Amino acid sequence: MKFTIKRSIFVDHLNNVQRAISSRTTIPILTGIKIAVLDSGIILTGSDSTISIEIYISKEDESNQLSIAETGSIVLPSRFLGDIVKKLPEDQLTLEVQDNLQTVIRSGESVFNLNGTAGSEYPTLPEIDADSTYVLPGHLFKRVVNHTIISVSNQQIRPLFTGVHFILADEQLKAVSTDSHRLSQRIVPLTMPEESRGKALEINIPGQTLTELTRLVDDNEDIEMMVTDNQVLFKIDNVYLYSRLLEGNYPDTDRLLSLDYNTKIKVDAQELVHAVERALILSHQGKNNVVKLSLSQEEAILSGHSSEIGYVKERLSLLSFEGDDLEISFNPDYLREALRSFGGQDVVIRFVNPTHSFILTPSEDEDEFNMVQLITPIRTPGN
Amino acid sequence: MKFTIKRSIFVDHLNNVQRAISSRTTIPILTGIKIAVLDSGIILTGSDSTISIEIYISKEDESNQLSIAETGSIVLPSRFLGDIVKKLPEDQLTLEVQDNLQTVIRSGESVFNLNGTAGSEYPTLPEIDADSTYVLPGHLFKRVVNHTIISVSNQQIRPLFTGVHFILADEQLKAVSTDSHRLSQRIVPLTMPEESRGKALEINIPGQTLTELTRLVDDNEDIEMMVTDNQVLFKIDNVYLYSRLLEGNYPDTDRLLSLDYNTKIKVDAQELVHAVERALILSHQGKNNVVKLSLSQEEAILSGHSSEIGYVKERLSLLSFEGDDLEISFNPDYLREALRSFGGQDVVIRFVNPTHSFILTPSEDEDEFNMVQLITPIRTPGN
Repeated sequence: MKFTIKRSIFVDHLNNVQRAISSRTTIPILTGIKIAVLDSGIILTGSDSTISIEIYISKEDESNQLSIAETGSIVLPSRFLGDIVKKLPEDQLTLEVQDNLQTVIRSGESVFNLNGTAGSEYPTLPEIDADSTYVLPGHLFKRVVNHTIISVSNQQIRPLFTGVHFILADEQLKAVSTDSHRLSQRIVPLTMPEESRGKALEINIPGQTLTELTRLVDDNEDIEMMVTDNQVLFKIDNVYLYSRLLEGNYPDTDRLLSLDYNTKIKVDAQELVHAVERALILSHQGKNNVVKLSLSQEEAILSGHSSEIGYVKERLSLLSFEGDDLEISFNPDYLREALRSFGGQDVVIRFVNPTHSFILTPSEDEDEFNMVQLITPIRTPGN
Repeated sequence: MKFTIKRSIFVDHLNNVQRAISSRTTIPILTGIKIAVLDSGIILTGSDSTISIEIYISKEDESNQLSIAETGSIVLPSRFLGDIVKKLPEDQLTLEVQDNLQTVIRSGESVFNLNGTAGSEYPTLPEIDADSTYVLPGHLFKRVVNHTIISVSNQQIRPLFTGVHFILADEQLKAVSTDSHRLSQRIVPLTMPEESRGKALEINIPGQTLTELTRLVDDNEDIEMMVTDNQVLFKIDNVYLYSRLLEGNYPDTDRLLSLDYNTKIKVDAQELVHAVERALILSHQGKNNVVKLSLSQEEAILSGHSSEIGYVKERLSLLSFEGDDLEISFNPDYLREALRSFGGQDVVIRFVNPTHSFILTPSEDEDEFNMVQLITPIRTPGN
């Protein structure tokens, strides 16, 4: 095989494909990028066996400056290929595979020889033969992921919780995640495909897949999603991201969400974030990472301490207070991440008692669960 | 003690003092910053026992918005103090030490209480009672450090080589460093103090001191330097950096520098840097980090290889070639750093033979040793 391509374009595509490649893989060939050269263009593939990314570079798109002399395929070491192509002296490169799989990359006065592996040894990607294609606007998808990714567990002991649970039904997408200490839920409208109307689709997408996907998609691009039994394929323009789905029945989380409360406050999310960030400077130093919130009609105090370093008290200015006095302790990192997921808006927080999880919703939409963060408190000796 | 100060000013000074503080210190009080409040201003001190930084913040400078209510001194945990002050809500803060050494920091609705240590327990800085003050322009000093710091050894086994050897005499400053694999030398003019004319001063300054100093000084500032037997004090405006000197007699390195050669080339430093950077992508993968340079009237080739990954050949365009054909092998990282220290100019490289160290000088000044890099080659089975 042999082709010539614009170097800067090739660098960008290699970078995107590399996102799927893990340095910790135990399967040697998956440390490589597969380059398949067809008559019409070239396909780059990278995979860590959970996620695979495939990019098609067309000869027809003149900006690629792609000319193909000979078809074929090869697997080349991903990191070196990326480093080499990034540093080549000219804005064009020629890649040629010789009979012995030695691959020659030329650009200006530089000649690299890399030991390749036959493309035929690379695992084949799953075939996605789905009935329906769901279309999600990139900006909306990113917001859903940013809101829910914080509650995804990183404990492999319960694999199901390392992903986000998606329910696509009734012209809406509902995304839920929980690590059993906190829970995030986001519901957005969705145009369902004709053939899926009246049906519901439930899948569990690994958190890592969602993170990579947000990096690959621009705000103004659409994501096409196709689902089979245990795989999902996302298509963004000429980029295809395949991912394994997480198996298992996600628990019913709706029963955790209730609008009941004994104490309810309204706060400016930004102001509270800053107070939490100051309080956690000290709480991070203690054995337990805990801050305390004391609420009453007269005052609202957030406090943190470390027996070695000292303590901090933050007087909060609430936008409103309703109900009983309350003292409640919790992990400040959870509250910080939850508040940040709301952006700059006012947030309503509902508390039942010091041992019951509390719920954050936007004040604009406080009686809906379209955008919820739930946090479980920490029992302290005082409670 | 008690004072009020503009927060942003205080943050900047704390950051600078923190440069002297090591997280690996075994002396607990040196994890703290000493704050001493006088009638006229406050002094911040940080130290790792090799380097100490002292900053004076004057009441007279109105931009400090400093008002002093009570004098005294305290030592506060450095990292927390920095983190806290950075995040306080208002642009003013009040710091007050209570009778029990509890220190209260207030800003807006935030109140921090930190456990302090008495200022009297902090080690006193050495007294520098020097006869002469040398003045060095900041931009010149930075160039000297950047040129020589690359050859400073990081092996504590020969402490003397972890510093740069400075000789101040005859209206010039000569700086030399070597880790025994390479050597850097830079000579710049220096206005000697009246009382030092005709005398010579030789000192060994730790590399770490020089690195911190380049971070503290702006190009258009002057550095005042005062030296005693085993200490040096650098003064930049209101910042004082004290450093221990390295003891021992630096070896005579002049005998290593010779203009003799059998092969001499002139190259564009930038072009050669890029070729070296490509070659080392592969040489870094081998057991030995080696590249080979083959020089003849007909062509100049730089090559690198890794038995696992492959090999690279770079054809160089020399600006001139003189003398015998040569094949020589060396560590590409050394050549890269040496070339970078010259910036964008043309460089002359003199070789004697494949086992003799080679010398780089700027082509503008090729017969002087005002700006030299020397690199020892690596013997390979072929040589």
